[in-house]
Amino acid sequence: MVFILYPNVKKEKIDSFISGWEQKGFSTILSIGTEHTAVCLIGNTAEVDLDHAVQTSEIVSYGKRITEQYKAVNRTVHEDNTIIRVGGVSVGEGYFTVISGPCSVESEEQILEIALSVQKSDAKILRGGAFKPRSSPYAFQGRQAQGLEMLKTVKRKTGLPIVSEIMNQTQIELFEEIDIVQIGARNMQNFDLLKEVGKLKKPVLLKRGLANTIDELLMSAEYIVSAGNGQVILCERGIRTFETMTRNTLDLSAVVLLKQKTHLPVIADPSHASGIRSLVPPLAKAALAVGADGIMVETHNNPAKALCDGAQSLDLNQFENLMDELKIRAAVEKKEI
Amino acid sequence: MVFILYPNVKKEKIDSFISGWEQKGFSTILSIGTEHTAVCLIGNTAEVDLDHAVQTSEIVSYGKRITEQYKAVNRTVHEDNTIIRVGGVSVGEGYFTVISGPCSVESEEQILEIALSVQKSDAKILRGGAFKPRSSPYAFQGRQAQGLEMLKTVKRKTGLPIVSEIMNQTQIELFEEIDIVQIGARNMQNFDLLKEVGKLKKPVLLKRGLANTIDELLMSAEYIVSAGNGQVILCERGIRTFETMTRNTLDLSAVVLLKQKTHLPVIADPSHASGIRSLVPPLAKAALAVGADGIMVETHNNPAKALCDGAQSLDLNQFENLMDELKIRAAVEKKEI
Amino acid sequence: MVFILYPNVKKEKIDSFISGWEQKGFSTILSIGTEHTAVCLIGNTAEVDLDHAVQTSEIVSYGKRITEQYKAVNRTVHEDNTIIRVGGVSVGEGYFTVISGPCSVESEEQILEIALSVQKSDAKILRGGAFKPRSSPYAFQGRQAQGLEMLKTVKRKTGLPIVSEIMNQTQIELFEEIDIVQIGARNMQNFDLLKEVGKLKKPVLLKRGLANTIDELLMSAEYIVSAGNGQVILCERGIRTFETMTRNTLDLSAVVLLKQKTHLPVIADPSHASGIRSLVPPLAKAALAVGADGIMVETHNNPAKALCDGAQSLDLNQFENLMDELKIRAAVEKKEI
Amino acid sequence: MVFILYPNVKKEKIDSFISGWEQKGFSTILSIGTEHTAVCLIGNTAEVDLDHAVQTSEIVSYGKRITEQYKAVNRTVHEDNTIIRVGGVSVGEGYFTVISGPCSVESEEQILEIALSVQKSDAKILRGGAFKPRSSPYAFQGRQAQGLEMLKTVKRKTGLPIVSEIMNQTQIELFEEIDIVQIGARNMQNFDLLKEVGKLKKPVLLKRGLANTIDELLMSAEYIVSAGNGQVILCERGIRTFETMTRNTLDLSAVVLLKQKTHLPVIADPSHASGIRSLVPPLAKAALAVGADGIMVETHNNPAKALCDGAQSLDLNQFENLMDELKIRAAVEKKEI
Repeated sequence: MVFILYPNVKKEKIDSFISGWEQKGFSTILSIGTEHTAVCLIGNTAEVDLDHAVQTSEIVSYGKRITEQYKAVNRTVHEDNTIIRVGGVSVGEGYFTVISGPCSVESEEQILEIALSVQKSDAKILRGGAFKPRSSPYAFQGRQAQGLEMLKTVKRKTGLPIVSEIMNQTQIELFEEIDIVQIGARNMQNFDLLKEVGKLKKPVLLKRGLANTIDELLMSAEYIVSAGNGQVILCERGIRTFETMTRNTLDLSAVVLLKQKTHLPVIADPSHASGIRSLVPPLAKAALAVGADGIMVETHNNPAKALCDGAQSLDLNQFENLMDELKIRAAVEKKEI
Repeated sequence: MVFILYPNVKKEKIDSFISGWEQKGFSTILSIGTEHTAVCLIGNTAEVDLDHAVQTSEIVSYGKRITEQYKAVNRTVHEDNTIIRVGGVSVGEGYFTVISGPCSVESEEQILEIALSVQKSDAKILRGGAFKPRSSPYAFQGRQAQGLEMLKTVKRKTGLPIVSEIMNQTQIELFEEIDIVQIGARNMQNFDLLKEVGKLKKPVLLKRGLANTIDELLMSAEYIVSAGNGQVILCERGIRTFETMTRNTLDLSAVVLLKQKTHLPVIADPSHASGIRSLVPPLAKAALAVGADGIMVETHNNPAKALCDGAQSLDLNQFENLMDELKIRAAVEKKEI
Repeated sequence: MVFILYPNVKKEKIDSFISGWEQKGFSTILSIGTEHTAVCLIGNTAEVDLDHAVQTSEIVSYGKRITEQYKAVNRTVHEDNTIIRVGGVSVGEGYFTVISGPCSVESEEQILEIALSVQKSDAKILRGGAFKPRSSPYAFQGRQAQGLEMLKTVKRKTGLPIVSEIMNQTQIELFEEIDIVQIGARNMQNFDLLKEVGKLKKPVLLKRGLANTIDELLMSAEYIVSAGNGQVILCERGIRTFETMTRNTLDLSAVVLLKQKTHLPVIADPSHASGIRSLVPPLAKAALAVGADGIMVETHNNPAKALCDGAQSLDLNQFENLMDELKIRAAVEKKEI
Repeated sequence: MVFILYPNVKKEKIDSFISGWEQKGFSTILSIGTEHTAVCLIGNTAEVDLDHAVQTSEIVSYGKRITEQYKAVNRTVHEDNTIIRVGGVSVGEGYFTVISGPCSVESEEQILEIALSVQKSDAKILRGGAFKPRSSPYAFQGRQAQGLEMLKTVKRKTGLPIVSEIMNQTQIELFEEIDIVQIGARNMQNFDLLKEVGKLKKPVLLKRGLANTIDELLMSAEYIVSAGNGQVILCERGIRTFETMTRNTLDLSAVVLLKQKTHLPVIADPSHASGIRSLVPPLAKAALAVGADGIMVETHNNPAKALCDGAQSLDLNQFENLMDELKIRAAVEKKEI
């Protein structure tokens, strides 16, 4: 249940309204937007008389019931698009932010060369995996803490904000200087980890799980936002289906639906979705056309020798060409790239 | 196994080459393109010595083995894009052909009003279901033969080529004046029907089955082409996955892969894929961006009262707006709409 | 909406009750069981006042609304288990009927040898494909009409009832002496074919489609039963999922649910479900344990040389051993094998 | 690559053989079985000359290459079935061990009542969730550490070994007195958690992820076993498919395949797989018939008031009846219940 307040209600009145509900055993979410301020009740609202609640409050314009289980991330509660600012970069409606870099940080030289190149091509955020979730214990597990150090060095040299994947909650301190913490697809329902990153004061990039529904993705985001961290970027990265020619099936309908249902930014990852280099540029363009707020694309200075996911990585030239194509199309979509 | 011939080989020499292989028990496919002419062998080619076969023929430039089970539709055998011409309209590389109309023909007035409107918005082909495959025997089964008559009348009045779905092989005569025969998703592996439409001299629109792989779609197309009818348009229309928020999951990666693997035109159907009106325009733009040769979009003059699939139908204004958006983007993609 | 009648109502009264509803525009299904007789209305029953309808009829004991779209196959309408009798064999509750034979009829010798052997092991019905639906046009398409002749010969020699797959409605006359007509998974939603076999006076074995829900299977059965043929055997044969180690995923929960929701017999096909010989015996035992009314198992006198599906076929010894194992377990389940 | 040693080779010779390979950069797994002792190499074995390696060692009987990525859990490396002993209970080949208890520990009274009842019915291990992974942050999250205390109390009173789910690696100390640590489906690829439980000296119950393949499950088990903990019980608990009538689709073929590919015990969870009480008994019997080494079944003293998953919980009578049915069938399968 959400109450939309009249404009310009004084803070004390809102506080008093909220504490009234909290005394009755409800939790609340306060959402302050440019158009309106809303208070959302969490708890057994089935027994609340909506009309009576609206009529007996002098600060409530109107109220409505929310059938979805996600509240704080729900566009019904919070109409304004959330724009996330990180290191001078914006992610959200009106922008098409390109995150690029290698699957895995391999060496300082490698990540620096890639960073300088993708920066020149107008990628705005650098990605690089330090801790790598791998199906086999015998596969390359990433450069770990050392990899994070390499990323920080490159951040200092280039000024690019950094995103890297966290694998468990004991690593949180290691990520202190990492600008965006990524929750990978396999951890989308690692609820304890979600609660921990919900305490951070930095953006979280939350990837959709391989077999998770759109609703489940939104509820995982709700774990983070309801824990206090409103800076969540959602990422569609392909779902597992019966088709085996691609690694996963990129679900671009999900991007549209997510943009309808939540105010959070939504990006797509055509690299992990397809697993095939030649599919990345057309799917990237499709993600832009469908309304995504950005993409995450794997690039490598030498894909043939990549320690991880070389087959889906663009080389630096291919990435530059893709960016040229995207810029023309972003102009048509009236998005800043 | 495919043999690429030298340029300008005389017909008699090709015939003699082919009959030589057929005497050894192979079937053959002759593919004449602008760049090269190719002869493809069907049968147990594992035992053929490729090098010897190339060296001992005076007309063969080179040969290669084809691992895929589809041959006639394989781009390796036939490099040139197939452009299908129907009633003055082209479908294939360089074009973005929009097919529009109602899910179901309801009355002559209905289909005429829709046809005139979508034609004005630059749709090039009219769709309309006369025989409707419905999960329940108690659901509206379409206007049947009468529906086809209405379509023909509207075709005469507007000049628009018509596409409508055939449900079984006994209906073939009824479709004589229908320009394009559609094989629906549920019939994609109705192999006897595929063989029958393979004998026709008109284009076939073949939709991907709900749970069929890209390879299976290509093999179903091979049934038609190998039976003599090279005019096949493939259509990605969403696959069945665990996600329930959309009716199906539109697999745009499949469009890219199909364009790589076959020379046949490939279109997308965002209406059936999503089942949700508000998703149709963004998915249509994504289909264009990803490289599809066209789309099939359901429109209705009164979606709220449609006898079938109203929830996914655009009204005539919405369709006009979509076409305006597509025209701007088709120019960027250098495609004629 | 279904009306349960009082016991021993005279036929004229029932006829008059039915014709009353038909005059109001409803279709009806009359279901006569051992426990009760029911009349089910088809049509827009939302506008019917159920209480009023019950109270104003002297023959109706009580009525209830049916939310499912399937009516004639619905256990709510028809409580008694349907037992299908064919050539002295029973299929349905209380029996565990084993259908066995090769994927494909190859020669009279082959099918006769297999038939005699599986009969000795107490298989009660012989299967053999004459028309084979194959993904590739270049794969073995079956012995066709000739294959049916071989089956008929073997039927005369052994007395075993025969089941074979029909691929389209023009073949119906060819199946005149075939005891059970099989609708394959790819044709489960070939609605015109369903309507045609609905006119037959012989059992139909309806296989679940690779990506069809339990509800859709029941609605396809409804096409046949509502067309007049109540002798339908449902077959769970594996669904298409992301798992690739098996050909499909046998869904034994579906067997339980189908038995709850419909009065029709339900069998399982562990051969096509798994595609792996060593999985067939354990899955067959599981099908018995879960409550299936039988199984269809592929056997071959020489699996290594089978023209089709050899990898999933049991040899004749393996089948005999499986039958020995099943007999012990059928006794525990109190089922006649 | 695995080397099977001659019988009765002295320990020093084996150690020397192993250290020889480790000096060349390989990791090794030593597997000591009743029939044979094997040494498995991990690393780039493609460059090892197998024949030469066998011929030049005096302790190697023969060797073979292993194509699978899992080694320590591979039956090729370790032929003998692993039987896990916990609190006097055995899990593995020859046994059909029933684990039972509520989805969630609610109170000491609740868990004690259930424990005493299921123990009387011959369940051998008690389950009870203390930390509950829930899709929504607003759903009941379990009694947490307090719940574990309740379980320990009940363990002392009944003597039943306890299994409960761990959600992250910081909880490991809390589980000290819990007999079996469960890794839930959502954590199957939480690789850091797998490594941590790999250091424990107690059994781990590893559930298959909703969208994880059989191969991926085996590789997750390999994470635990290769980290030093060989006591892993695998659990098939249903996969996510397009079918919505059941919560998930129980994949009993996976049980058979797992038993073929690994020496670890394999059980099934019909409660979470189906989500429907009436399906649990037939699926439990099917799991026994297919060859599972046990089941995990949710029971509750008052399912209608359960805080979690009541719809799939058996009441205590239903569980007793199920156990009676299972005992008869376990005798047929020559398994100790």
